[in-house]
Amino acid sequence: MAAKSRFVLQRLFNGLRTQSLWLQSSKSTSSQGRPSSLSFRTHTCGELRSDHVGDKVTLCGWVQYLRQDLFVILRDFTGLTQILIPQEESASGLKSALCDLTVESVIQVTGTVRLRPSGQENKGMPTGEIEVLAENVEIFNICQKLPFEIKDFVKKSESLRMQYRYLDLRSSQMQQNLRLRSQVVMKMRDYLCNVQGFVDVETPTLFKRTPGGAKEFVVPSREPGMFYSLPQSPQQFKQLLMVAGVDRYFQIARCYRDEGSKPDRQPEFTQVDIEMSFVEQAGIMSLVEGLLQHSWPPEKGPIKVPFHTMKYEEAMRDYGVDKPDTRFNMKLIDLSEVFSASDVEFLRSALSKPGGTVQAICVPGGAVSTGRSIWWKHFKHRNHLLVVLIRADGTLKSPLKKLLSQSVTDNLLKTTGAKPGDVLLMAAGSLHTRPLLGHLRLQSAQLLESSGVTLRDPSAFHFLWVVDFPLFLPKEDKPEELESAHHPFTAPLPEDSQLLYTEPHKVRGQHYDLVLNGSEIGGGSIRIHKAAEQHHVLKNILKEDTTLLSHLLEALDSGAPPHGGIALGLDRLISIMVGANSIRDVIAFPKSFRGHDLMSRAPDSLSEEELNAYHISVKWPTKHERCEEDERK
Amino acid sequence: MAAKSRFVLQRLFNGLRTQSLWLQSSKSTSSQGRPSSLSFRTHTCGELRSDHVGDKVTLCGWVQYLRQDLFVILRDFTGLTQILIPQEESASGLKSALCDLTVESVIQVTGTVRLRPSGQENKGMPTGEIEVLAENVEIFNICQKLPFEIKDFVKKSESLRMQYRYLDLRSSQMQQNLRLRSQVVMKMRDYLCNVQGFVDVETPTLFKRTPGGAKEFVVPSREPGMFYSLPQSPQQFKQLLMVAGVDRYFQIARCYRDEGSKPDRQPEFTQVDIEMSFVEQAGIMSLVEGLLQHSWPPEKGPIKVPFHTMKYEEAMRDYGVDKPDTRFNMKLIDLSEVFSASDVEFLRSALSKPGGTVQAICVPGGAVSTGRSIWWKHFKHRNHLLVVLIRADGTLKSPLKKLLSQSVTDNLLKTTGAKPGDVLLMAAGSLHTRPLLGHLRLQSAQLLESSGVTLRDPSAFHFLWVVDFPLFLPKEDKPEELESAHHPFTAPLPEDSQLLYTEPHKVRGQHYDLVLNGSEIGGGSIRIHKAAEQHHVLKNILKEDTTLLSHLLEALDSGAPPHGGIALGLDRLISIMVGANSIRDVIAFPKSFRGHDLMSRAPDSLSEEELNAYHISVKWPTKHERCEEDERK
Repeated sequence: MAAKSRFVLQRLFNGLRTQSLWLQSSKSTSSQGRPSSLSFRTHTCGELRSDHVGDKVTLCGWVQYLRQDLFVILRDFTGLTQILIPQEESASGLKSALCDLTVESVIQVTGTVRLRPSGQENKGMPTGEIEVLAENVEIFNICQKLPFEIKDFVKKSESLRMQYRYLDLRSSQMQQNLRLRSQVVMKMRDYLCNVQGFVDVETPTLFKRTPGGAKEFVVPSREPGMFYSLPQSPQQFKQLLMVAGVDRYFQIARCYRDEGSKPDRQPEFTQVDIEMSFVEQAGIMSLVEGLLQHSWPPEKGPIKVPFHTMKYEEAMRDYGVDKPDTRFNMKLIDLSEVFSASDVEFLRSALSKPGGTVQAICVPGGAVSTGRSIWWKHFKHRNHLLVVLIRADGTLKSPLKKLLSQSVTDNLLKTTGAKPGDVLLMAAGSLHTRPLLGHLRLQSAQLLESSGVTLRDPSAFHFLWVVDFPLFLPKEDKPEELESAHHPFTAPLPEDSQLLYTEPHKVRGQHYDLVLNGSEIGGGSIRIHKAAEQHHVLKNILKEDTTLLSHLLEALDSGAPPHGGIALGLDRLISIMVGANSIRDVIAFPKSFRGHDLMSRAPDSLSEEELNAYHISVKWPTKHERCEEDERK
Repeated sequence: MAAKSRFVLQRLFNGLRTQSLWLQSSKSTSSQGRPSSLSFRTHTCGELRSDHVGDKVTLCGWVQYLRQDLFVILRDFTGLTQILIPQEESASGLKSALCDLTVESVIQVTGTVRLRPSGQENKGMPTGEIEVLAENVEIFNICQKLPFEIKDFVKKSESLRMQYRYLDLRSSQMQQNLRLRSQVVMKMRDYLCNVQGFVDVETPTLFKRTPGGAKEFVVPSREPGMFYSLPQSPQQFKQLLMVAGVDRYFQIARCYRDEGSKPDRQPEFTQVDIEMSFVEQAGIMSLVEGLLQHSWPPEKGPIKVPFHTMKYEEAMRDYGVDKPDTRFNMKLIDLSEVFSASDVEFLRSALSKPGGTVQAICVPGGAVSTGRSIWWKHFKHRNHLLVVLIRADGTLKSPLKKLLSQSVTDNLLKTTGAKPGDVLLMAAGSLHTRPLLGHLRLQSAQLLESSGVTLRDPSAFHFLWVVDFPLFLPKEDKPEELESAHHPFTAPLPEDSQLLYTEPHKVRGQHYDLVLNGSEIGGGSIRIHKAAEQHHVLKNILKEDTTLLSHLLEALDSGAPPHGGIALGLDRLISIMVGANSIRDVIAFPKSFRGHDLMSRAPDSLSEEELNAYHISVKWPTKHERCEEDERK
């Protein structure tokens, strides 16, 4: 083993010395002392303190490193213990066995706990008061070689991490992420099952293609031409369980979505899937608040309930997006009034169109903290966008400046509250103006933060409900037709339900999204429970083939209770909780961007014989088709 | 709704009146009163007692039946409550609304709890002391029609139950099964996670085909010719998690097995998947005993640990099977000695061959309790099998009788302990003799029970460990080659490990099966943790292509701890716990024998366009191939 590799491992595991409170606190509660009882060890490597001095102990673990032929630092999932190598002639066999160990070898050491000599304590290490004088060692496995050199690891770290995931998972961060996830899920189950009386029901994943389920993986059966499909969620089953009288259902459900290579999406993912009968929107929201409060890791600080609620319209108006990051302000400001009588041609033209608007965000201190040029660099080529810097003397630095009268300028500054050193980003247009500024708001926040401004507290968790979504949206490609904003089973707001038959585009749905720090971590709705209404939505509004859902319609007609539910994205929730950049950091064996398992090399080719059993054959694309596909990527 | 259909529903739900203790006891503990708090109701339908008299309550549920235009019996998952329909003229609107209800309609009733008039209490009904005088009703959904008539339901009950599963699940038995399953799993998680420090880790189901994994479903990817496969178990991942230092892993894991139409197998099923580091066989066994004791439903009676352990050889010798039903005796008896000097040609010939043996079971009172003829009828056409009845005078009734001397006859009766009225089933041959008698032992038990003998206590649970299995078995089609008895990752018994290199067929494995009432409900092993040994087994003994498992071999060489684990079949375990005939009765939405979802009609056909995305096309079998396939079925 090269010295370099030793170094990278040391770096990789350094975190273990300053373990999070979480690991320590979970140890000190229910599982105290227990992890040892069924196995070879008497104690874990993170457990020994000065109280244990004089005890004979057996530890099992990995060689973290050797020091000066005097110490072996032994690691397991709970931490590190220093093993003292005996130096007497009589123990020469033991000494040479220990000194010959390579890092990451797996051993069992028996010895006696003693205090470290005065002055040699390590206060940064939970077991830093003591060491174990080795009396016996059993070598379970010598680590032959580590499969990567530090150079490669740094250069292509992500794919190397995935290829050697079993080494990557040894890092303290990944250990912590997996253990925290397990604990959070356990507490969620405790809340749902033991506190709220929910029933954990497993639903099938070999199912039938749902109408419009273009993103569903298919699974050939042994019947020629017949395929199962892996569902994107247990939506139909959870509703059928309500019809079945289960009353309260939950499942930590594996779901599948075939989206090719979208960044930070996984072909299989996990949702906390919940459905209740005899409930309204407020009931589900309060349930979820209780659930998160109950399962939130104590060291992440308490969370306050009820969460703030915002209407969809308000979110779009103030943040330009339906999942606002409310950890910082910089809301959208409507300047239509300011420019209503403007001479500036492109503003007037924008305002004269239906839905025309002029909007801005004000980036406080933007010109000061980041330097001016960065704003031009980032935003000058955007269509319909104007960058305005406020000079120290209150005048504008902008191509717009000479077009505006003093009174309009004053009004602009007053309405936006812009002060010297601020940056205004202004956009004029119709439908897409707000989403554009909503996007720029997030980009501006990143720009400010990358220049050292603390805009968002990294330890803050801002939960937000977004409600009153439109039930239908115009189809992107055929705006004269409607599609479901979420899914076709969402019930209308009671006060809008008559509009279903007259002006469906005006109907708001009983849908609610849960947003955390600007990420959507959950969504749900009260469902339609009357067959006639569901049939009307499917057939007359969405123009779907209702025969594909005949079993659901029939079920609604056989005594369906009012019901509703929600699904929380577990991977996303945990990744925000631990501050990970990617959901891959909270999944034990994730796929790559392209959906590959880099460790086992899945997906893989199959023999013709294997395919014959399923009555399928590969249609190899022609050279021409291949080129077309490559271009689309 | 036809009167007949009313009747079938009444029958279907009758069980609710005499609910099991389980439902009641689970209500009275943690979720007491809680199920109401988030929903419309103030109480559940199983909750009201005389203490509540005078209270104004709101109940939600299904109309179980109407009686004499006076009562509506309302049902939810907790039980039934009698609703009194007011008869005054002033309440005529309310009265007609209630009287017009069809059974299985869903309503909300508000009213006041009152004692039933003296003499009208129903002691068989937990809420039988009270009734609720209706003051207000909200009708959520009228049950339009039930989709089956009683006649059909009785005739093709299994497929109708599956097609209208959402109605079938309303039965008290299915409600109870699903709720018990949820509770048991919750307690298992509590034990593993909170008591024993296990980490719940989710592993991928979109994986790579395992060597020899002929029963794995395949999932085409969007890359031409590349397929995922749905694994039969997380075996590789759980071992890699041990290499990763997770120390203790568990998962309630969805697994997949494509076995076509084997009875009582499901294409997707659930196992309690467990793996530990630094552990020996005894540690895993004691963990599982603790797990089952902790999660066992109290009303099923306590279970005693440790479970009895039996060696594979002993099981085969005494029961002719590796998963003996130890609830009754009737062990195999070796008669080779008795007939060693026999003149009877076929016995002598059998005994002269290598491994030749004569074996018997004695069915006590078999001839008395079932009548004699049934034994002839069932068994006379079996090859190598002799049926011997013991007459009241102790003489034999058998074609064998005249061939045996008195001393051999006496010896036979003495060795078998057969008494007048008993039946002896005897077989002579080699390898297959014991399995044949093992099978007949179970058939005989069924015969006795169907004639009214109580042989096996239906409330008894006999757990048994079977250990010391052979590590390899001769291949059925090529007996000169070896295959793994379980899987190629099982470690040899330490005392046999040198035989791996000399006489592999003699090696016993560190494998253990858990048997409950004669069904295998779990199996596990200590795994090979050294790369060289694993490589030897794969390459030299099993002749596998080791490149397919190179990631695992590489992982073992990067610091793998000694480890082992087990997987328990959850569906089977719960079905035995509740006394269900089929695992379909403990799965919410099972597939039919042929792997179909009869409710949604999965699997289904796909359009060519949908298949194009996965670069596959259907290879329709020729008429000739179809005929061949039909014949195989």
